[in-house]
Amino acid sequence: MSTTPPAAYRPTDRTVPTRSRERASYDREVVHSVLDAGYVCHLGFVRDGRPVVLPTLYARVGEQVYVHGSTGSRPLRTAGRAEDAGLPVCLTVTHVDGLVLARSAFHHSINYRSAMLHGDAYAVTDHDERTMALDAIVDHIVPGRADDSRRANAKELAKTAVLRLAIEEVSVKTRTGGPGDEPEDLELPYWTGVVPVAPVYGAPVPADDLAPGVEPPGYLPAG
Amino acid sequence: MSTTPPAAYRPTDRTVPTRSRERASYDREVVHSVLDAGYVCHLGFVRDGRPVVLPTLYARVGEQVYVHGSTGSRPLRTAGRAEDAGLPVCLTVTHVDGLVLARSAFHHSINYRSAMLHGDAYAVTDHDERTMALDAIVDHIVPGRADDSRRANAKELAKTAVLRLAIEEVSVKTRTGGPGDEPEDLELPYWTGVVPVAPVYGAPVPADDLAPGVEPPGYLPAG
Repeated sequence: MSTTPPAAYRPTDRTVPTRSRERASYDREVVHSVLDAGYVCHLGFVRDGRPVVLPTLYARVGEQVYVHGSTGSRPLRTAGRAEDAGLPVCLTVTHVDGLVLARSAFHHSINYRSAMLHGDAYAVTDHDERTMALDAIVDHIVPGRADDSRRANAKELAKTAVLRLAIEEVSVKTRTGGPGDEPEDLELPYWTGVVPVAPVYGAPVPADDLAPGVEPPGYLPAG
Repeated sequence: MSTTPPAAYRPTDRTVPTRSRERASYDREVVHSVLDAGYVCHLGFVRDGRPVVLPTLYARVGEQVYVHGSTGSRPLRTAGRAEDAGLPVCLTVTHVDGLVLARSAFHHSINYRSAMLHGDAYAVTDHDERTMALDAIVDHIVPGRADDSRRANAKELAKTAVLRLAIEEVSVKTRTGGPGDEPEDLELPYWTGVVPVAPVYGAPVPADDLAPGVEPPGYLPAG
């Protein structure tokens, strides 16, 4: 982890798409930016020979992605038993940026950024790495929050499993811009263009049991 | 498909969570509402013994979910060869509704609704079902759009694979409400509550090649 990572990840058979190759990027900064823009990933693993896709929180720290969960949850239990062997996973993060309305149904699409990581996830057992990862997951949702909350105690840590996945085999797929209609469709009478979409955060809603006068902290998204 | 579906789906070993069981629902209307609220799913399948999680567009029609893709893409190619056998998949749809900030890091969470379907996906070969499914996918993104665009021609249909997954083995997990701090943490000085989040649609951006004077149709999300 002390070596300088390359400017781009090496494409592999799994990360080179069979089509729309121009949409794929292996650039390190692009991969990091897509991972850093989200906090919910979809984690895929195989159980009894069949796929499972679980939404879960994550954080990137350098060239690692961490996910956490209850030690009672299935993927974490599976991986917790696999400290040495690792759990084969595919971790996908997707941001939807727009609805693309072409004149033809066929060319309808969405604008998006999606990172797909392949690899083996390992249970993190080192105490310092575990607490660092849990801080990172909290700070990934709301930067600055880890320092402004009570950190996990020993009992809570014992209930929490943390998995680590190295960012090595990864690609980002991106679609941007307007519709790509066929030349023979340009005279059709349909409206065509893009409807932008983005997550918008509302005003913070205080908990029922929050003491009066405690103001929302400045690190929260502006409501 | 002509029988009346039950009011709830039958829980199975795969759809009963090992923890937080109170968050799980098998209610048919709940499942439908979570599926209908989105248009991007994360489709998991197994390739060479390892998981793959692909973001893709989908639509629900009755008790079926349809996804489509290029006949050149890997999962569709795999399933296209498996008309009889089916492709084991897990299709997950997740909506994030809020960031839950507790006083303790441990109780940080997100409010969300997530549907997880397990089953075997089959390539759809019937022409009428294929065109119906493609209409449904376009209308799922923007209701009313399928009738207001040029439908796929024979050449485009030949390039498009459609998969069908029956809604049978499914659960919805939901978290709502405020943080659930421990009683001994209630006096801690940290702000606590929920930051709501939702996708917001912007004003439609016309394509560069759209003729002047073509107004955005009324079925678009209000920008």
